[in-house]
Amino acid sequence: LARRLVDLEAQVILVDNLFPGGGGNHFNIAGIESKVQFENIDVRDTPRVAPLIEKCDFLFNLAGQTSHHFAMADPQTDVSVNCCAQLSILETCRHHNPSIKVVFSSTRQVYGVPQYLPVDEQHPLSPADINGINKAAGESYHMIYHNLYGVRACILRLTNTYGPRMRVKDARQNFLGIWLRRLIEGSPIDVFGDGRQARDLNHVNDVVNALLLAAVREESGGQIFNLGASDPIELRDLATLLIEINGGGEFRVVPFPAERKAIDIGSYCGNYGLIRDRLDWVPQSCLEEGLEGTLKFYREHYRHYW
Amino acid sequence: LARRLVDLEAQVILVDNLFPGGGGNHFNIAGIESKVQFENIDVRDTPRVAPLIEKCDFLFNLAGQTSHHFAMADPQTDVSVNCCAQLSILETCRHHNPSIKVVFSSTRQVYGVPQYLPVDEQHPLSPADINGINKAAGESYHMIYHNLYGVRACILRLTNTYGPRMRVKDARQNFLGIWLRRLIEGSPIDVFGDGRQARDLNHVNDVVNALLLAAVREESGGQIFNLGASDPIELRDLATLLIEINGGGEFRVVPFPAERKAIDIGSYCGNYGLIRDRLDWVPQSCLEEGLEGTLKFYREHYRHYW
Repeated sequence: LARRLVDLEAQVILVDNLFPGGGGNHFNIAGIESKVQFENIDVRDTPRVAPLIEKCDFLFNLAGQTSHHFAMADPQTDVSVNCCAQLSILETCRHHNPSIKVVFSSTRQVYGVPQYLPVDEQHPLSPADINGINKAAGESYHMIYHNLYGVRACILRLTNTYGPRMRVKDARQNFLGIWLRRLIEGSPIDVFGDGRQARDLNHVNDVVNALLLAAVREESGGQIFNLGASDPIELRDLATLLIEINGGGEFRVVPFPAERKAIDIGSYCGNYGLIRDRLDWVPQSCLEEGLEGTLKFYREHYRHYW
Repeated sequence: LARRLVDLEAQVILVDNLFPGGGGNHFNIAGIESKVQFENIDVRDTPRVAPLIEKCDFLFNLAGQTSHHFAMADPQTDVSVNCCAQLSILETCRHHNPSIKVVFSSTRQVYGVPQYLPVDEQHPLSPADINGINKAAGESYHMIYHNLYGVRACILRLTNTYGPRMRVKDARQNFLGIWLRRLIEGSPIDVFGDGRQARDLNHVNDVVNALLLAAVREESGGQIFNLGASDPIELRDLATLLIEINGGGEFRVVPFPAERKAIDIGSYCGNYGLIRDRLDWVPQSCLEEGLEGTLKFYREHYRHYW
C-alpha cells in the first residue's frame, strides 16, 4: 500500500510499532524510505498517534493484532489493540479531523464457522475466537462513528492475503507464510486436519486496489465489504500447487493441534459481489502467477524475513 | 438478588465499586449487612477480584457500565469495564475455578434498532451505541470460554428492569428512575419523542428469578436468553399509568435531546419464549402492582436515593 501510494505521489506516514510478532519489517520500505515518513509508534500510544491522524486526508486503519492463536493466549493485549486503540483513533478523528476518510481492515473471522458458502455480508456474525470478537467490535465502533458523528468510514473484511513482504517466518500472520518458508528451506509443509478446508486467497496487489477504492470512492462510506476470490482452493490442493510451482517439496497431512482445532472455522470463501457492484473491485491476480511471484520474492530476499 | 440469596442461606460476597454514577447504595443491604461479605472493589481490579472468584460456586456477573449515554461520552471507560474486566474475570474462572457457573447480565441493546417485534434471540445483533457493542463483545467472550474451556456460562439479555433499590436520582440506569423521582417530587415527567415507543418492563423480583434459574439449571449452560414481559407498554401510556397510581402528577411530551435521539432504538419488546420453554421462567409481577410497590418504596425511602 505504501509503495502504491508513493507511486501516486501521496504524502505517506507509516505507523508501526515493529512488534516482533507482527509484520513490520524495515526491508519492506527499501527504496521508498526517503519518500515516506516512518513513525515507530504503537497504535495504542494515543498522544503520539493523534497528532499524526490530525494531518491526514485518509487513514488506512490496518494496525491490529491479527493472530487468532495469540489472542486466545493473551486476550487483554488483543482487546487493547483491536478495541481500545480503535476507540482512541476514532475519538481523534471525531474531535480533531472529522473530514478524514477511514478504511478499516477487518477479517472474515468475524463470521465464525460459516453457515453457508460463499459468505456474504448478511451472514450472521458469530466469531469463534477472541480476535474475531474484538475485530467485530472494532467494525461496529467505526460504523457508530460514521453514523452518529459523520466520520466517514468503510470496512473491508479481508480473507487470506498473500504476496511479497508478508511475515513468513512462522504462521502468525497467515498459514501461507510458514508454508512458503518451509518450501524454500526444503522442509515439508504441514496441512492440518484432512486438508479439505477451502480458502480464498487474495494477492496483496488486489487488496491494495480494494483499499484505494474504499478510500477514494464516496459511496463506500458506511459500507462493509467482503473481499474474496473467484477460485477458492482446498488446502491440500494449494499445497500441491505450491510444490509444483516450486519445482519440488512435500506436504504431510497431520492432525490439528488441539488449540488450533478449537478455533478452526472449516471451509471459508467470501462472496465479494457487493464490492464488485459498488466499487468495481475485481481481484485480478491469477493464483498460480501470484504464488510464483511470491515464492520468487522470498527465494531472493529470505534473509530479511527469517 | 443478594437478599434472596441470603434468604436461601447462600454465602454471599458482594463486589461493588460504589461508583457515584452507578447503582450501588449501602441502604440497599440494610438489614442483611451482617449476612453478606461486602467488598468495595472495582471489577477491573483483577488482583483483588480474582481471589474472591476463586472461592465461589456461582458468579452473578452483573457489574458493568450500563449508561448508553455515558458510554458515548467516555467509550474507554465502557470498554475497560464491559470488555477488559470481563476477560479478566473469565481468565480467572478458566485458570483458577473452572467448575464455577457464571450468569452474565447482558442487555437488549445488543440488538440495536429492532427489525421485527417481539425480538427473539435469533435477531441480528446491530448495536446502536458503544455500550451495546461492548456488551455484545462481553457476551461473546462468555460463549467462547464456555465452548472452548468449559467455563459454564449463561447469558441473560435484560430489558428494562425496575423495582425497589434501583438508582432513581437520574436517568443513568433507566428512564423509569428519574420518572419515579419526579413524580414523588411533584415535578413533571418528560417523555421523549412522540411517546409511542413501546418498552417491556420486568420487575426486579422476576429478574432475580431468572438469575437464579440460570445459575442452578444445568441446561442453561452455553445459552443466551431474552427476558421480557407479556404486556409491553408505550411510554406515554406508562406515564399515564404511573400518574394514576401516584394519585397525581403530569407528563409532557418533549423532543428528544439530540444525543439521545442518535442512539434511541424506537420500540422494543423481547420474545422470552426460549427461557420460558427451557427454564420455566415466566414473569409473575403485574405491572400496575409492581409500579405501586416501587413508588411506595421510594416515597418511604427517597432520602437514601437522592
